[in-house]
Order: sequence, then C-alpha cells, then structure tokens
Amino acid sequence: MRKSSWQERYLASQIYTLRCKIEDNVGMLGKIFTAIGQTNTNLGDVTTIGIEGKSKIRDIQVYCSSKQQLDKVIESVKQVAGLEILNVQDDVMEIHRRGAIDIKSRIPIRTLTDLRMIYTPGVASVCQKIVAEPDSAWEYTGLCDRVAVVTNGTAVLGLGNIGVVPSLPVMEGKAAIFSEFANISAVPMLVDSKNPDEVVETVCKIAKSFGAIQLEDISAPTCFEIEKKLQDRLDIPVMHDDQHGTATVLLAALMNALKKTKKDPKKCSVLILGAGAAGVAITKILLKFGVKDIVVYDSCGAIYRGRTEKMNIYKQQLAEITNKENQQCSLLEGFKGKDIFIGVAQPNAVSKEMIAAMAKDALVFPLSNPVGEITVKEALEAGAAVAADGRTINNALAYPGLFRGALNIKAKDITVDMQLAAAQTLAQISPEGKLLPDILEKATHEAVTKAVEQAYKE
Amino acid sequence: MRKSSWQERYLASQIYTLRCKIEDNVGMLGKIFTAIGQTNTNLGDVTTIGIEGKSKIRDIQVYCSSKQQLDKVIESVKQVAGLEILNVQDDVMEIHRRGAIDIKSRIPIRTLTDLRMIYTPGVASVCQKIVAEPDSAWEYTGLCDRVAVVTNGTAVLGLGNIGVVPSLPVMEGKAAIFSEFANISAVPMLVDSKNPDEVVETVCKIAKSFGAIQLEDISAPTCFEIEKKLQDRLDIPVMHDDQHGTATVLLAALMNALKKTKKDPKKCSVLILGAGAAGVAITKILLKFGVKDIVVYDSCGAIYRGRTEKMNIYKQQLAEITNKENQQCSLLEGFKGKDIFIGVAQPNAVSKEMIAAMAKDALVFPLSNPVGEITVKEALEAGAAVAADGRTINNALAYPGLFRGALNIKAKDITVDMQLAAAQTLAQISPEGKLLPDILEKATHEAVTKAVEQAYKE
Repeated sequence: MRKSSWQERYLASQIYTLRCKIEDNVGMLGKIFTAIGQTNTNLGDVTTIGIEGKSKIRDIQVYCSSKQQLDKVIESVKQVAGLEILNVQDDVMEIHRRGAIDIKSRIPIRTLTDLRMIYTPGVASVCQKIVAEPDSAWEYTGLCDRVAVVTNGTAVLGLGNIGVVPSLPVMEGKAAIFSEFANISAVPMLVDSKNPDEVVETVCKIAKSFGAIQLEDISAPTCFEIEKKLQDRLDIPVMHDDQHGTATVLLAALMNALKKTKKDPKKCSVLILGAGAAGVAITKILLKFGVKDIVVYDSCGAIYRGRTEKMNIYKQQLAEITNKENQQCSLLEGFKGKDIFIGVAQPNAVSKEMIAAMAKDALVFPLSNPVGEITVKEALEAGAAVAADGRTINNALAYPGLFRGALNIKAKDITVDMQLAAAQTLAQISPEGKLLPDILEKATHEAVTKAVEQAYKE
Repeated sequence: MRKSSWQERYLASQIYTLRCKIEDNVGMLGKIFTAIGQTNTNLGDVTTIGIEGKSKIRDIQVYCSSKQQLDKVIESVKQVAGLEILNVQDDVMEIHRRGAIDIKSRIPIRTLTDLRMIYTPGVASVCQKIVAEPDSAWEYTGLCDRVAVVTNGTAVLGLGNIGVVPSLPVMEGKAAIFSEFANISAVPMLVDSKNPDEVVETVCKIAKSFGAIQLEDISAPTCFEIEKKLQDRLDIPVMHDDQHGTATVLLAALMNALKKTKKDPKKCSVLILGAGAAGVAITKILLKFGVKDIVVYDSCGAIYRGRTEKMNIYKQQLAEITNKENQQCSLLEGFKGKDIFIGVAQPNAVSKEMIAAMAKDALVFPLSNPVGEITVKEALEAGAAVAADGRTINNALAYPGLFRGALNIKAKDITVDMQLAAAQTLAQISPEGKLLPDILEKATHEAVTKAVEQAYKE
C-alpha cells in the first residue's frame, strides 16, 4: 500500500465521539488536541454539552481508520491530567441504528374524520378517480415522489459482492440523501438474485409502485443488461447511478478543469482505466460531449478491435467506438502524451511515473472509491495541472436533481441530454476556482433539477 | 337499496370544506347549519380561520355521498343572506394529493461529516458489520420497523378487482395508519400479477428488504394460497389483514358482546355469511376461541360436506370443521335460533325477518364494507341485543399492534395465539359499555403490542 498517512487520516471511515469531563483550566483543550494529534488522528467537531461545577462537558469527535487507532487515541487522551472520558460512542453505527430513513404519514391522524379521509370510506373515492382517470394516480398518490433504489448487492461500494442485506445501509444512505436534497421518497429495494433476468422480472412486477427506478451497486456487465431491459419494458425512468451519476459529475468537473487549463475537449486524448459500469458510461458521455480520442484499459491492457482476452459485448462495443489507432501497448506506454486520465478501476493502480508521462497540464481523475488509483497529492507532484478523486467527484451531486427533474416533468426516461445538461449546470454554478459546487447547498440540486427539466422539454 | 337516509349520511365518503365569509350577526351560524340540514347533509368540523372587517372566515366541513349532494348544499347555503362562499375544497382528494406518506431521512444532512457517516465512506463499516454479524442488520438498518403492504389489487375495499395502481391510495392509507399508530415504516408494494405463484415469487425476491409482510386486498381463494406459501418460504411474519385483522377485531367485539348478554361461547350457535378471506379466518379463530357450533353460508347457501357447487379446497376444509349436522337449508331457515350472526359477504344481504328468527339476545355483526349486510338500526329493531358493523369492527384496531409486537420481538410469524391475545386485550381495555376501545388512542395500540409480545414468548 502506498497510502500516505495524510491520505489514511482523510479516508478514515470510523467516526467516534468521546464525551469528556474537562477541568476548566487555561490550555486544557490545547493539551487534549495535542494528545490526539500525537496519534496521527484527525479531529472532527468539538461541541460543548454542559458545565458541571468547575468542569466542562465536551463531545470531541475523532476520525479513525480502525478500532486500534481509537484505542490509541483514548490511551493518549487519558494521559492529560484533569480529564475524564465519560463515554465513547461509535457515531457511524449510532446514526445507522434502526436505519437511516423513516416512512411517515403526511397528515397526523387525530380525529375520526382524518381516519375516514385517509382510509375507508373516503379513500374509495380516490381509488375510483384513478380507475376513471389512470393518469390522476400521479396527482393523488406518492408516485410523483417515489423512487425505488434497487440493488442485488453484487458490487457494493468498493466492498464487492457482499449480498443484499449487508448492502441495505448503502441503499438507506442514498434514500436519506434523496430525501434531504430533493424531497424524493426513496425505497431501498433488495432483489435477492444474481440472475439478470430474474432481477428484471422482479422489478417489472413491482414497478407500478414507483415513479422511477434507480439501479445501484449491481456488478458489470449484468448491470448494463438489467438497465437496458428495464428501460425497454418500463415507461418510467430507470437509471443506473454507478454509470450515469458518476459520468455526469465527472463530466462537470472535467468541463471546469478544461476551462482552467484552456484545453479543447475535441483535441484532448483520454485514457480511461476501468471498463466496468462507470468506465463504459464515462466513455459514452465523453464521446457525446465531443471528445474524439479515447482509449479504455482494463486489467488485461488496452481494449482494441480484435482483442479476445476477457471481452464481453460491452467491451466489444467500446472497442468499436474508441481506440481509433487500435493501440495495444502497455498501460505505462498508453499514458504517454495523454491529456486526461480517468480511473474507475482499483486503488493504487497508477504510478507517478505514468502521470509524469502525460501531456503538459494533464487532468487526472483517480475515482476509485474510497481509495483512488493514485492520490491527488502524488498526481500533482507528478505534474498534473488538475487532480480530483472520488471525494470531490461525488454522485450525490447529480442523482437527486436528475431524478427530481425527471419526476417533475413525468419523464419516461433520463436521457443522455438530461445528463449533459446536469453536467453543464454543475460546471456553471461551481464557485470560481472550484471544479464542482457545494453538495450541501439545496440550490445546487435545484439548479440540476431545472436543467434536467429544460433538457427533456427541448 | 334499503339504505336509510340516516345510514346514507353516515356512510358519506366525500368530505368537502366550504370556506365562507360570514357577516358577524347573531344567529348567522344557526341559519347556515339549518340550510345545510335541509339538504339532509351531515356537518363535519367547523373552524374559524380569521376575521375580515365585520365578517368572520370559517371553514365548514360537510359529508356528502355524491357531487350532486354537494351542489345542493352550496345552492342551499347561498340562500343565506350575508354569506359568501370563497372556496370549495374536496378534502379527501386534497389529503391524498402527492400520496399519504413520505420517506424522510432520520438525520438532517447539514455537514460533510453527516454525509460521510450516512453515506460513503462511513457506511462501509456498517455494511462490514452486517457481513460479519448478519443478525446485526436488525439493529443497524430499518428492517426492525419496515413492513411491506403487498397487494395485487384484486379485492380492493368493496370495489373489487380494480387493478394495482388504483389500489395504491388504500395501501398508502394503511401505511399512514402504521406510522401514526405504531411507528412502523410501511411501504406500499404493488405486485402486478393475478397469478398466485408469480406474486409469491416476486415477494420472496424482495422480502429481504422488509421485517414483515402485510398482505392486503387480495381476492379469495388465491389469498390463502399466497399467504400459506409465503409463510412457508419466508422467515419473517406474513399476515393477510383482510383475514386475521378482521377476525381479531371481530373476536374482541364478540367477547364483550357475550359478556354483555351473559352468553357462553361454547354454547352459542353461529351463522357466518361469506366464505371469502374474512369468513374463513373468522371461522378458524372462533373455533380456536371455543365456539363449537358454526355454519358458514356463501352465495350458494350453506357449506356442507358433500356439496359440489362452487366449492374450493378452502370451502372443503370449512365443510369438515363446521356444520356438524350437515345442515343444507335456506339462509332464512339457517338463521332460526342462531345466537350470533357475522356477515362478511355483501351489502343488504340480510333482512329484518332473518334477524327476528334468531335466538333471544342475538348478536349481529354485519361487517361488509362500507355498507353492511343489514343496518345496525334495522338489526336492533328486529330484536338483536347487540349489533355492530364495519365502522366499529375496524381492522386498524389490530394490525398496527400485531405487527409492532411481532417486530419488537423479531417473531418469525404472527400466530393464532398472538391474534387471540390481541383480541383478548382489545376486549379488556374497552370502556364500560363499549365493544371496542378508542382507535385513536396510542394506548390502545400499545396494549395490543404488549399482548402480542407476551403471547409469542409463552
């Protein structure tokens, strides 16, 4: 592993809160933070909870990459005189306790009249309205806000094929983001099958419960087949986020990076490492955007017309639309003179030497999650003009607005033009000097929503 | 139709709010309510909204059975001098606009730390915890609160086979009740198939998304097959509410009615009209409760051993466990001397003559919804000691607590003993002189929950 301790600290995925009783003497916090710093641990938020006599109660959050690291922090903090640790809480586990989402009645049921209206006998008139005017279901049910987040658990985060139930916290996390950023009611939907046709059949049978379908964490190449078949059979939007969410946000960042380096996308040469869900979608959106020179690599090297090793019909298609000169050289050779590198393969697959071989002002996007193909720091050191990884290129910048826009206009699909419009907007609203806008700002998602609606109408 | 205007008014399923600007003179409200009364229309709530000069703005709610009746109300109210109708709103449709439920993040996503914890990279540690300890999914996802409300739209309310999408408002209504009465997150799940095996396969494929399955508005006899197969294949509770919710609440009311009339269930003779979902389940729970003498009728008459007309395996089973004397007489003849009548068939199927033929202090439960087999008023006039219809015997008294209790103890099924315990508790906590407790009281549902937990443990 070539991870720097800097990266290790940043990528720490375990977050703990130490509730401490601290004597209110000058310099105490400095001593505590120094003690934590000595363990090479990142500090999170510090919150004052209360005062007890001559002590303050404070919650101190630390980011760790393991339980061992936490133990070191506790050990180190305990050395500080005048401090007592009252409680240690695993914040990530606590936030997921009983799940990340709730389903709630939109109307409190306080009176018998409420009950009569929400349920029988009143609800019968709503049913009859929908029988008489099927389209009114969009108005008088939650279909207009309801998205299924469908997975079969075969490619969950960077964890791989862990099965459906262990993937549920991810689906709930996505649902929480849908709710917070776009007022979308998203239902985690675990489909317990690795057979693509079974997944398709199951989703088709329950599809009338939803206004749109988001596919998530389904492994390539079956994810392409599942998405295509569902799109053909259903008259609601179906979008695989790992493909198109990633492609949309990457394109937005790329637009700003090109502007910054004054490069013309039509003249740029691109190396994409990874021919899975994201690699295929990124290739397609870049071609649509106007990039002409792309070579895609996978674990066997360049994908070219005539290659026989580890191919599938999706790689065959890539071979037809990329790699014009049918380049078959090594990865290091392939990097030579390239303007843009995009990694959607695996951690630490790219060396500084490779980046150094690229053209002047190279743009480097090592997107593998949570650990990239090369660190941003190393890429910049190796001469990249711009480098950004998966922490910056976050799908959640795109998908809430893509789905909200599609639902608002009752779109039958989420087209490439809608994705391009979303990317264009994300690029445009980014603050000066930044590749992408603030993910926490509602305005970001509203702007994407509007762009998507507009693109569908055109 | 033998509906009395009294019943017609009560059953009115359309609720409108007239926003009126009313001159603030003595006696104005009296005049308005008299005008509404002249149209034979029930008044709902009256709410003062504001004051404008010498007028008050009030919302006046009226219960109608048709748009024509509303028009009459408006016409009549307009005759009152000093009143202006500002707006007329269809309250039932409004309350269902955009659906009855929302899915919300349990935690606001305000900071990047929130996002890191709910989604990547933090969520990965929750996934890994579940991979290592599969049972922890119950603790760190929403499974412990999440119920699918599954229908194929084949027997929706009294409306019949209206299809899946028109049934969605009912499923959302049930979900709203689950949320309000039992803090359960219920997901409306429309399965678009009339083939019972397809319904079973589909539900099995998505079952890992849920902690329990409520079947709803699925027609007999496939509902029995679907429920049985799902119970056999899944290790979470599966309960068809039209069967067991109804049976549980009916039994509770019956317990109190028996007490009131000092009848011994073991010595009571029962006539059940209707051999569908509810009829079968009620028969079974009454037998379990200790009733010995039951005859079930359907549209062809009594169900008896050897009958060939319109039979199915479920009716064959009924023939084996009921109708000891293999009675084959007419419905009117069948009523003679019976202590208890339970109707789960169709509106107005029973006459006063039939009720009058019953034993002294007869107990009459015409449960067909929303219009019963006979009105409560007529049943009492014909000599019944106790009569209660579907407005009183409301499934929603039982199912929130049945599922909450089952989820709390991670039960693998909802047993007949759990249903009996729920019925017993509903009967016990009913106020003096009432058949059932208040459905709007949280304490009602909490009591059922506790009884169900206790029964499962025993």
